[in-house]
Amino acid sequence: MPRPSQRLLSPEIITEAAIRLVDLTGDFTMPGLAERLKVRPSSLYNHVSGRAEIIELMRARVMAGIVVADPDGKWSETVASLAREYRRNYAEHPRLIPLFTAHTVQSGVAFGMYNALAQAFSDGGFSPAEVLHAITTVDSFVLGSALDLAAPEVVWATAPEANEPMRAALATSGPNPGRADAAFEFGLRTLIAGLVAQAPRQDRSRPAAPMSRG
Amino acid sequence: MPRPSQRLLSPEIITEAAIRLVDLTGDFTMPGLAERLKVRPSSLYNHVSGRAEIIELMRARVMAGIVVADPDGKWSETVASLAREYRRNYAEHPRLIPLFTAHTVQSGVAFGMYNALAQAFSDGGFSPAEVLHAITTVDSFVLGSALDLAAPEVVWATAPEANEPMRAALATSGPNPGRADAAFEFGLRTLIAGLVAQAPRQDRSRPAAPMSRG
Repeated sequence: MPRPSQRLLSPEIITEAAIRLVDLTGDFTMPGLAERLKVRPSSLYNHVSGRAEIIELMRARVMAGIVVADPDGKWSETVASLAREYRRNYAEHPRLIPLFTAHTVQSGVAFGMYNALAQAFSDGGFSPAEVLHAITTVDSFVLGSALDLAAPEVVWATAPEANEPMRAALATSGPNPGRADAAFEFGLRTLIAGLVAQAPRQDRSRPAAPMSRG
Repeated sequence: MPRPSQRLLSPEIITEAAIRLVDLTGDFTMPGLAERLKVRPSSLYNHVSGRAEIIELMRARVMAGIVVADPDGKWSETVASLAREYRRNYAEHPRLIPLFTAHTVQSGVAFGMYNALAQAFSDGGFSPAEVLHAITTVDSFVLGSALDLAAPEVVWATAPEANEPMRAALATSGPNPGRADAAFEFGLRTLIAGLVAQAPRQDRSRPAAPMSRG
């Protein structure tokens, strides 16, 4: 006798259900996932090898939304545009972030963005070790910013403990996404300024047009 | 008849148990916490008002470890030292981070660090709106970096999809905490350089000694 629930399973369906579970509860288990999908846990293993593979499928699903444009401008503009795309996609599922950072990146899809970042920093003249540091820096800033975008309207209560500069700063805070967006753009501008200042090579358009003078 | 389990409860014990639960599972519920402490859920409410208060107690417990030193150097040095302290304390409990960012900061303890950051950026001449953006930027970078410190030894698998600059960068990656520490220091240096470049006021020691010339 056919079991209809079996036929409804696929890696995509399992991935979507796992994302919903993490959105709701912060994590997922194979038994919890099976219960949600109304199948036996063993049925899941006909489609995925286990928890680690599901985490990579979730990562691929989230990172597939990142548009990696042709790097025809300055390397710093490429980095800024990738950072914006990266944040936009992760902000929809902030509770996935600690699961992703706790697992080795295996997904080929993820390398689309990381390759573009590596190329951009390499164009800036950074050494391979610095390229890795710079990618990690962008990663950390973007993931933290994605968490901030999911923060409540009031990030800091106006506490009696706040000093004068903190109170004045809090008084300027507006509603989201405006507040988080403005902070992210300030931070991105700051980070890019710091990267350009440290880059061994001049930040110019690529491919560099030959200069003809006189 | 006395109920011994009741006498063992306190806000501190509840907070510690909640931290353990989040470390293990990514979240906590009041019934789950009661089960772990072998008490009835109603007993918890004799000590805390609910989930929101427990999250603030956890935040206060983690942020209490942050040493806020006297700002006797440059404002940028104060920011760098606070960022290091902040990361060190959060890195022990990375799975708390999405819970913290999803809730309004109420804890008076947390304002020790935020006040010191606000004072530093204000000393740099940033406007109140920029102070808020700068604090958010440090927050995002540090929280992302704390997640990175909890990452696995191999952050990126050496995938066939990696391009040449990415492969070269990955080849320089060493074991943790060295890898994450080096990336964090690179990122912090970059961020501070960008902040100093954007600061309206010169980055000098505070209190500024009067200059006597001639």
